[in-house]
Amino acid sequence: MNLLGDWWTPLVLRDAFAGIRRFDDFQRSLGLARNTLALRLTRLVDEGLLERVRYQERPVRYEYVLTEKGTDFYPVLAAMTAWGDRWLSDPAGPPVVTRHDCGHPAHAEVVCDQCHRPFTRDTVHSELGPGFPERLANRPDVRARFGTGEPE
Amino acid sequence: MNLLGDWWTPLVLRDAFAGIRRFDDFQRSLGLARNTLALRLTRLVDEGLLERVRYQERPVRYEYVLTEKGTDFYPVLAAMTAWGDRWLSDPAGPPVVTRHDCGHPAHAEVVCDQCHRPFTRDTVHSELGPGFPERLANRPDVRARFGTGEPE
Repeated sequence: MNLLGDWWTPLVLRDAFAGIRRFDDFQRSLGLARNTLALRLTRLVDEGLLERVRYQERPVRYEYVLTEKGTDFYPVLAAMTAWGDRWLSDPAGPPVVTRHDCGHPAHAEVVCDQCHRPFTRDTVHSELGPGFPERLANRPDVRARFGTGEPE
Repeated sequence: MNLLGDWWTPLVLRDAFAGIRRFDDFQRSLGLARNTLALRLTRLVDEGLLERVRYQERPVRYEYVLTEKGTDFYPVLAAMTAWGDRWLSDPAGPPVVTRHDCGHPAHAEVVCDQCHRPFTRDTVHSELGPGFPERLANRPDVRARFGTGEPE
């Protein structure tokens, strides 16, 4: 999850999902310093969530377009928004209402992809994947951060 | 989403979901500077996702326990993990395997709470909620950041 940098990154993605593509429009919407916004956009391009596409030749101008990987992040933001609507919204209702193709005002719900019942903390158990923790311990970035596992 | 500060916050929550409660255990797990970790934990307490609970009298010691609001954030992290498993995982498999109560290794899936079909960008339409954007424009924090709407 480190890849995403900080919580400005989801806000940039949210704008991208709303159809924003151009630097100045992101800047207007987010009120971020231009150099900070440039860093966020570059990071999202480097990580493959956005693609930088030339839309004008003279002068050369680029816009930022969601890739398949970036588009697939939408459900995560939708789950976050549903949580926000449950816990942060004021009594007059949420700032944005989402409507699903089925026709109703709707919220995202997180379910198990096998049985389709809610995927909550008390219905889920986690275990280390095959080869872990040894595989993790041999990763260069983990070794650099935590050492080689030798006693200090 | 600003409330969550940055992406260390979900990592703190992930540890809390894994059962970690004590400062030193968070610190060992995350490798964060102690003052940074203290800020994250305080923020999560202030926002009502964690509760600071005394567990020892002499010397006085506290642990950090998930509230209902914090526990309800689990599905958001689960959706994020499912995305990570789809797009970031190495071919040998993900670092952590989750098993749902239904008995199968399982992933979180984000669906519409009305029709239970996938809640994806191209099946969802967003509109401003009742009273918006006027309600938003009158919020003190928005006025402070964007001005009163008068021409500059």
